[in-house]
Parts: sequence; C-alpha cells; structure tokens
Amino acid sequence: MLARRMERVSSSPIMDLIKTTAAGNYLSFASGLPDAGLFPVETLQAIADDVLDRDGRAALQYGPAEGFPPLREYVASLLRKRGLPATPEHVLITTGSQQALDLAARALLNDGDRVLVENPTYLAALQAFDSFGARYEPVPLDREGIEVERAGEVLQTGPHLFYTLPNFQNPTGITMSTERRERLAVAAVNARVPVLEDDAYHDLAYDGEPPRPLVSLAENPFGVYTGTFSKVIAPGLRIGYLYAPPALTARLGQLKQITDLHAGSLTQRIVFEFCARGQLEPAIARLRDAYRARRDVLLDALEQHVTGLAEWTRPRGGMFVFVRLPAGRDAGELLRACMEQGIVFVPGASFHPDGSGTHTFRLNFVSLDEPRSRQGIEILGRGLRELAR
Amino acid sequence: MLARRMERVSSSPIMDLIKTTAAGNYLSFASGLPDAGLFPVETLQAIADDVLDRDGRAALQYGPAEGFPPLREYVASLLRKRGLPATPEHVLITTGSQQALDLAARALLNDGDRVLVENPTYLAALQAFDSFGARYEPVPLDREGIEVERAGEVLQTGPHLFYTLPNFQNPTGITMSTERRERLAVAAVNARVPVLEDDAYHDLAYDGEPPRPLVSLAENPFGVYTGTFSKVIAPGLRIGYLYAPPALTARLGQLKQITDLHAGSLTQRIVFEFCARGQLEPAIARLRDAYRARRDVLLDALEQHVTGLAEWTRPRGGMFVFVRLPAGRDAGELLRACMEQGIVFVPGASFHPDGSGTHTFRLNFVSLDEPRSRQGIEILGRGLRELAR
Repeated sequence: MLARRMERVSSSPIMDLIKTTAAGNYLSFASGLPDAGLFPVETLQAIADDVLDRDGRAALQYGPAEGFPPLREYVASLLRKRGLPATPEHVLITTGSQQALDLAARALLNDGDRVLVENPTYLAALQAFDSFGARYEPVPLDREGIEVERAGEVLQTGPHLFYTLPNFQNPTGITMSTERRERLAVAAVNARVPVLEDDAYHDLAYDGEPPRPLVSLAENPFGVYTGTFSKVIAPGLRIGYLYAPPALTARLGQLKQITDLHAGSLTQRIVFEFCARGQLEPAIARLRDAYRARRDVLLDALEQHVTGLAEWTRPRGGMFVFVRLPAGRDAGELLRACMEQGIVFVPGASFHPDGSGTHTFRLNFVSLDEPRSRQGIEILGRGLRELAR
Repeated sequence: MLARRMERVSSSPIMDLIKTTAAGNYLSFASGLPDAGLFPVETLQAIADDVLDRDGRAALQYGPAEGFPPLREYVASLLRKRGLPATPEHVLITTGSQQALDLAARALLNDGDRVLVENPTYLAALQAFDSFGARYEPVPLDREGIEVERAGEVLQTGPHLFYTLPNFQNPTGITMSTERRERLAVAAVNARVPVLEDDAYHDLAYDGEPPRPLVSLAENPFGVYTGTFSKVIAPGLRIGYLYAPPALTARLGQLKQITDLHAGSLTQRIVFEFCARGQLEPAIARLRDAYRARRDVLLDALEQHVTGLAEWTRPRGGMFVFVRLPAGRDAGELLRACMEQGIVFVPGASFHPDGSGTHTFRLNFVSLDEPRSRQGIEILGRGLRELAR
C-alpha cells in the first residue's frame, strides 16, 4: 500500500549502528555528533530567557515560511563573507541543513534522474535522493576533491544534479581545490546542470579558511548552497539554511511551507540572538582549537598504531578521517572484531552509491577526548594487525 | 529545470493574503493563528530555563528520528485517553502536524493516485497531496460531516487515501458524527484504503469532548492519525505527532529522518516538561473558556448583522466558522469591498479541490477580542447588504 518511493527508503545503517551500540560502553568513532561538552549551554540559556522575556509571543507564534527576517538578513551577511552575493531574498531558513538537501532534491529530481556525486559521499543526502528515485553517477575523489576530468565528462552528459561537499567532505574529510571548483562551476553552468553544494562543515576549518563556495564561481540559476548552525552552535535547535537565486529560493520556500510551515520561531530567535550578540565568532574559535587538537591526536595515534596497515586522509577541517584498508580487506569484518574490543566506527560501504568501498571506514575525531581517542586507535591497530594475519 | 511535481507547488493564497494585509491595520478574520496573548509565556520561560539547566547538553544535541522517548510515551498516554490503543512505538514526533500530513502523503501517494477528501478541506494538506501528484474525489459535508453514502461509494472504488478532519473541521467547523465515523472506518478497512485522520483541533472543544477518532473504530494497518501541540501550547515550538500501527510508524520514522533528522531536541523537552508538570490540562481549560466565549460572540454578531444575507456553521470547537453566500454571489468580490472597510477573511474557493465554493468564505473566531470581532462583523454585514443590492 506504500508509495513506490518507499522501496528506496530504509533506516540508516549508521543510525542503526549507533542505536545498537548506544547501550554498550563503547569508545565510539561512529557518530556524526559534535561534542556536547562544548555547547554554549549557559549562553543559550540566558538568550532563551531574554527572547521569551522580550519577544515571547512572537517567539511562540507561527512565522513566515522563509524564516525569521532578521535571521535571514544575518545569514545573508554571513554568506557574503564567504563570497556569495547574498541578500535576505537568497536565504531560506530550514529545519537543519538536512531539510535543505531534502527540499532541493524534492524540487529538482524526477524519478530516474541522474545525480553526479562524489564517491563516497554523505549518506543522508543519498537517502533523500533515493527517496525521489535518483540514479547515480559516482566519481571518486583524490587529494584535491572529486576527480575533475571525469566529473567534467559526466557534466557534459547533462545529469539532473551535481551534489558536492567541497569542504572537509563527509566522509573523507577532503577539500576541493579552488581550481577544480572553478572548472566544475563553469562546466555545470555550460551544461545547464543544477548544483547542490553542501557546506555543513564550513566553519570547522583548522588550517585556514576554506576556498570560496563553488556556486559563487559561476552564475547558476539552479545553484543551491546549504549550511547549518548545528556544528557551530548546537544541532538540537535544528536551524540550517540554504542559499539560491531569489526566484529559486521563493519556490523552495513554497515547498518548505508544505513540508512543515516554517522552522521553529523560538529556536530561530535564539540562533539570531546568539549571532547578534557577537557570540558566533568566539564559539567558532573555541571549536576550532578544540577540534584541531583532537584531529591532531587522532592523526598522531593513527601514525603510531596503524602505519603500514592502512591509509587515511589528513583533513584540514570537519569531523572525519577516512581510512582505506588494503584492497580485498573487509571493514565490516574489522568492525566486528573491534566491537568485541569495545570500539565502534562506520564501515564505508554505505557511503558509496556504487556498492564499492567495502575496504574503507570513517572515524569521527571530535567526539572523543585525547586519552579515549588514543586508546581507541590502539585497539584499532591491534584489530588491524590480527586481520592482516 | 524543476521537477514536474513543482508544477503543482505554489504559494498559499491564504499566506499571500495574510502577507498582503500584514502591514495594513485590518481587523483580520483570515489567519489560522491562535491568540498569542493566551500563550503560557512565563511558564514556558521557566521550563526552558530548567531544561537547559538540568539537561542542557542533551537538549542541544542530535536526538532519535522518532522523537524524545519520554514525549513519545506521554503522547501515547494522551492518545489512549482519546480511545487509540497507543504505545510509544505507535508515535512519531513531527515538526508540527503539517509535517505529519506531508510525511504520510510522501509515504502513501504515487503520482496520479486518487484521494477521497471532504469538500471543502484543509488547504495545506491539499498542497502537500498536490506536490505528490494526487487527484481528488471531493465529497461535500452536511451538518454531520462528510456525506456518508457518497463517501462510502467512493471508498468502494478503492482510492489510495481517505483524508478526513472529523473534529471542528478546517474550514467548516463541522464535526463528524460517531455513526459516520464507524461506517467509514469499516468501509475503508474493507476496501483496503489508508486513512489519514487530521485531529489538529481536538482539544479546542467547547461543548463537550469530541467523539472517538475514526481510526480507533476499525483496525486499519494504514490508518494514520495526526495531532499537534500548536493549538494548545504554542505553534512556534513546531511540535506535532502522528499515530499509526508500529510497522508503519517505523517506516514514517525513516522518512522523517531523511526529511529533517528529528524534531527539535530543546522544544520537544519543553513540550514534555509542560505536560509532565500538569500544565496541559489547565491550559486547555483556559483556551476552551476563552475561545468558547469568542465563538459565541462571533455567532451572536453574525446573527445580528448577517441574518438573511448568508448562512453559516455553528462549530462545537476549533477556530473557524464557515459562511455560505447565496449561490452565484462571489466571496472574492465581497472581500475586496470589505478590505476597503478594513476587514479581511479567506474566500473559500481554495479549500475546494473541485473549483467550487466561490460563494463561501472562512472566519477565524479566536484571534479577535469581543469589540473587534463585533466591529468586524458589523462591517461584514454592511458589505453583504451592499453586495446584495
């Protein structure tokens, strides 16, 4: 009795793994969660109090589908600093950036449409695309991002969407070079291919600011850019945003209204106040320092315990390191062995829409502190050595 | 470049009207907004503070797609009181009940599927169904709800969904009789037709409790029931829910995760605490008293100023009275005349999927206080008399 699209809707293997292991006492490299210990709880508490004091009725009432106007304006100013020519009319406030991806897919994809994606890529975006019947043109990444020759060839065949995470990609941590961004932005416009650029990790940059957004490098009437406050303030508020040319933003806003009317009135005001009070930049600076240190710990521990057993990425930002075992090895098998020793990570197969990647896995480096991270990687190293025998 | 489904996505005529008139100084009967003056601002402020104090990290972190477990449990207990055999596994917490309708449509409707609807019905549900390519089988309502013979005949032809608002229907305010609920619940099961029962106004009952939910009256494996805290706590928190058999709830939860990961962690906890502290029942009692009085004022003013010029419903709950002009009269024309005199209401045509209803309109009776409501209806009466000339 369900719609056909439900044939391609299932639970997320990552979420299933997280649920399965939630009760156990695992050292988990599996989640996509930021460290709750770094949330600015007291500041948000004071702000929530003030917002309800000063503006309680509006903060609890219905609001416009496009978002709380001062927040749209603030996001536009934020995006201008990133190189996007944003006005408030370019901005739609969404229920987290997952909704931005889902709305874009719903607005752009017909059943059977081809989507050019990085291989591997963000699982929950694939799930959204799957639910609208997408087929994939997966192109591998190297150190500078998606392989640009191959991606350019695919663009020339006119797929219906190019989905990319140029900064600190989930799951690989790889950042696309400026030169590739330029080439692909232009190639997409020339081939009239919509672009969906996912920049959820933008501010988690540990070695200097990331390059300019791909959609800022050529004028694409169907260029959509998505971002979120989840990684830099708190995900539980569910406030993200998208940027697109105003005509497209207006259409996505109509879809947003059908979907859930609008993002939370109270939480939008909390996010806006946090930013308006100048709290965002220091929060980002704190997170960068904390997460940079954790990245360095993880990379150091990998060096110490995993050298010669696997290869891994060295991300300049974000939350993830991606590990490749020698071809033929099975990350699922390694996971089973490691779980017996008390650690969890996410096997990479589900990030690969072409079914490859069984020898890869993803490590979250932000959620564990230094001793637990080192301990976990030591266990991983032992597991790898046993697997290699 | 947009997907075909976007051909049937457009802005809401109601929202457009509300935007157009927001700047002017209108007496507005147009909105679907509860009275923000009745929001329990101080209680929610204290609760937000406590939640962030005691449980700040979890309240700001990602959470499960299905919802905050204590809130699922609380909603299950609430629904058992309404006659639904609910456990937490039957409940999915949604970003307002609009999302519950949208998720159900996305899970159940293929392009071209027929949906049995009341004529008129809730506009934003039609918009969600439209976006998934629905066609309609509209059946009129009389004083006891949808015309049951005709609806039964349509059910026998096997439409793909029966969407109904049995309590204080939006836009008519009509409540379906228990007998009709029973007949249609059984008929839907016999014809294997999924039911989507929208009970957003359940607690706004001014003349006794509403009858049992339709989906509780026959065991339908595809029976979905939706509700919300928007009308009884505050809509700006964006917390609603759906009830369905656990197997279907699990599938809808997968879809929910794709859509926006989960409803707000902070706002779910605020709603839960509000309920757990015993604040919900007194809040409902206060709203009932306030809105009952306003309904009575509006009905009295209509009696005084509109008798002989139009007919209208006498709702036992909810937020709306529905007015029918003599056939041939145009509510759009009346609206233009009335707007010049400073009042706004929603013409009924957009609630009618068959294009009828141009002689009807909807009045919200909860947002204006007594003097403004009486003043507005007096203006309406004058407008009607001029139109009748």
